[in-house]
Amino acid sequence: MKLEPGNYAVIFTSTRTDVDTDYLETFEHLMSLAKEIDGFLGIESARKGLGITVSYWRDKESIELWRRNADHVIAKNRGRQDWYKSYTSIISKIEHCSGFEK
Amino acid sequence: MKLEPGNYAVIFTSTRTDVDTDYLETFEHLMSLAKEIDGFLGIESARKGLGITVSYWRDKESIELWRRNADHVIAKNRGRQDWYKSYTSIISKIEHCSGFEK
Repeated sequence: MKLEPGNYAVIFTSTRTDVDTDYLETFEHLMSLAKEIDGFLGIESARKGLGITVSYWRDKESIELWRRNADHVIAKNRGRQDWYKSYTSIISKIEHCSGFEK
Repeated sequence: MKLEPGNYAVIFTSTRTDVDTDYLETFEHLMSLAKEIDGFLGIESARKGLGITVSYWRDKESIELWRRNADHVIAKNRGRQDWYKSYTSIISKIEHCSGFEK
């Protein structure tokens, strides 16, 4: 994944309920749909009690396309109803990237 | 933690080596130092293979203060030498926050 200043990161942090029904299937289905969005750059996810998922986008327009995706809208409603105790979603514009690899 | 547009998120993703010596102690020491930085707003962390730590800052100046903190500089060198196989660090400016809580 190659990120540049001006690209966007969406930081989604969440705490889960104990309802697991359809959760993983829906997550995987949504991932396959997100990857088809023009401007989707990548996604990274980790959980340890708190879940953090960061998705990366070329620009605001690509985030907006994803935000309006019908299956995504349905999943968000289902998420509020069943899977999540709480979440926050932060849209941020990338200014600087650095890295290290052994 | 109250975030506003114009605040900053630093997204640190990493993969670890199997060297654990001093890792947790250093992480906790650095957290206590970061909290003392004027403009530090909060931090969230999760790991599942990949680790994702997001720290939140009032502005770029507070990130810069933290970036130059002597113990932080030492820990970064140690991190590259011992604890991390790879990492990326992304500085991004928050444009929009939303959330949900049951």
